[in-house]
Amino acid sequence: MARVVRIAGAQTGPISQADPRPRTLARLIALLETAAGRGAELVVFPELAFTTFFPRLMLDDAALDSYFEPAMPNPNVQKLFDRARELGVGFYVGYAERAPDGRRFNSALLVGPDGAMLGKYRKMHLPGTVEPRPGERYQQLEKRYFAYGDLGFPVFRAPRWHDAIVGMLICNDRRWPEAWRVLGLQSVELVVLGYNSAAYDPNGGNAEDAALRTFHSKLVVQANAYMNATWAVAVAKAGVEDGAGLIGGSCIVDPNGRIAAEAQGLADEVIVADCDLDLCTQGKTKMFDFAAHRRPQAYGPIVAQAGAVAPPPSRR
Amino acid sequence: MARVVRIAGAQTGPISQADPRPRTLARLIALLETAAGRGAELVVFPELAFTTFFPRLMLDDAALDSYFEPAMPNPNVQKLFDRARELGVGFYVGYAERAPDGRRFNSALLVGPDGAMLGKYRKMHLPGTVEPRPGERYQQLEKRYFAYGDLGFPVFRAPRWHDAIVGMLICNDRRWPEAWRVLGLQSVELVVLGYNSAAYDPNGGNAEDAALRTFHSKLVVQANAYMNATWAVAVAKAGVEDGAGLIGGSCIVDPNGRIAAEAQGLADEVIVADCDLDLCTQGKTKMFDFAAHRRPQAYGPIVAQAGAVAPPPSRR
Repeated sequence: MARVVRIAGAQTGPISQADPRPRTLARLIALLETAAGRGAELVVFPELAFTTFFPRLMLDDAALDSYFEPAMPNPNVQKLFDRARELGVGFYVGYAERAPDGRRFNSALLVGPDGAMLGKYRKMHLPGTVEPRPGERYQQLEKRYFAYGDLGFPVFRAPRWHDAIVGMLICNDRRWPEAWRVLGLQSVELVVLGYNSAAYDPNGGNAEDAALRTFHSKLVVQANAYMNATWAVAVAKAGVEDGAGLIGGSCIVDPNGRIAAEAQGLADEVIVADCDLDLCTQGKTKMFDFAAHRRPQAYGPIVAQAGAVAPPPSRR
Repeated sequence: MARVVRIAGAQTGPISQADPRPRTLARLIALLETAAGRGAELVVFPELAFTTFFPRLMLDDAALDSYFEPAMPNPNVQKLFDRARELGVGFYVGYAERAPDGRRFNSALLVGPDGAMLGKYRKMHLPGTVEPRPGERYQQLEKRYFAYGDLGFPVFRAPRWHDAIVGMLICNDRRWPEAWRVLGLQSVELVVLGYNSAAYDPNGGNAEDAALRTFHSKLVVQANAYMNATWAVAVAKAGVEDGAGLIGGSCIVDPNGRIAAEAQGLADEVIVADCDLDLCTQGKTKMFDFAAHRRPQAYGPIVAQAGAVAPPPSRR
């Protein structure tokens, strides 16, 4: 008996600093309604879905606080939660979390179709720098504004979706196979993730172009889905946001690493696929039967060191 | 100053049980000469390059021994080593190794352009089963015929190739991101690997077809090359060998995960690319600056357990 969940990715176009929250919320709700109209049971929104990607800005504490949610839900987001429950649709959404103890995290929530809080994740792989790069208009200050995730890489059972085993990642996490593997070691069947990824260097440097960056984004989602025999849904905030370009490339990927659905543009857009969780079984029991084939005794350096250590140069 | 090495992949078509070794050696030497004629400084041959893929056969000890090399080089392979040195071309070659203590390994050698032995690797991720699957004509008995590799995942400096940091993998290893990561943690700049990968279930089962399996093979090489900011050269033994199909899909992949060269067919074929090792620097110092961005404190399960452990089902 197939265990099919119809899943939507709700890519958004840019959300500018000037956008009032009610307008942003209305856009997210419109995407939710479109997805529900197409029969989706789960909608995946981007990372930091309620605001501009503020880590590109140098902000003082007061300005920074305005981007953070003190609790979830709260009056600033309640309508999205309410509408989702009305429609019987669950969702993943990324947001800036201010914990009761004052710590700030780049977080994501997984909400069931009945409004139940299924799980929370706090981003582990924070890119960027603590100190602003001098002389640059656009920064990447996630290491300054957020604490590292302290919840590990948890998975959650979703009773209403055939008891699916669901894991969450956020943006840069998707480029790190360790993150996927810790989920895979918990038999994950569905990885949901949102992202904001620069399409080019907004300061005018000579870096990779948008096509290459979009290729990278899909490549890591496809390969890590395959290597862990899991479905994956990766959803962008896209387009030119406050003068800085973001890639699109939102996609739904099957456990063979094949793209089942993908976004065509850089604006608000819903993609949908029927995801049969039982398609994970083939990989999990054969090629990627971890118990039969992994060799953890050979993987020591992965946890014993953070950085790379090159062998000494040859004497020539 | 660019550090360019011109590298060839020497894909071979099938090598049958009936093929006499001199004929096989002549084919490998012809590929070597073609590669040298195109200016290659390093030629990558497949896994178990000198024989049919014998783990598909149920063999007694005496028959099994006939597939193994008691030392490298030895009179049965000497001509390849001699011709390579004459041409000033180095190579990677996979072979069945019988160690002096009698243990058998699925191994690969890296030989410099001057004939120097740069390194040896013994395959870590052995697929298949120890016991034959009853009633099946074609087996996969690597776990029966080989011991697990006991050399870790070493890298080697190659003085004649701009002091390149080279790592080796063999076949199934390429699907395991842990293997690539241990190489990446040693700043690997070039991963060379050979493979024999079934194109379909030779026993007639309803498994993935050749197109999907070839996609998988390229996907893991491309993504793991990107995620470790390294060049990768993956080379197949291809075509229908003793009644069992093998995928082709040999490719040379750059540190962005893009295919720089790929085989077109399933027969003996040489592919060539100029590999600038300095193209690894961008990834290694930015997106994949491991010291800045990895979080080994969150990766514990990767070494603490081999198999996957699913969370308990929900009570419903």
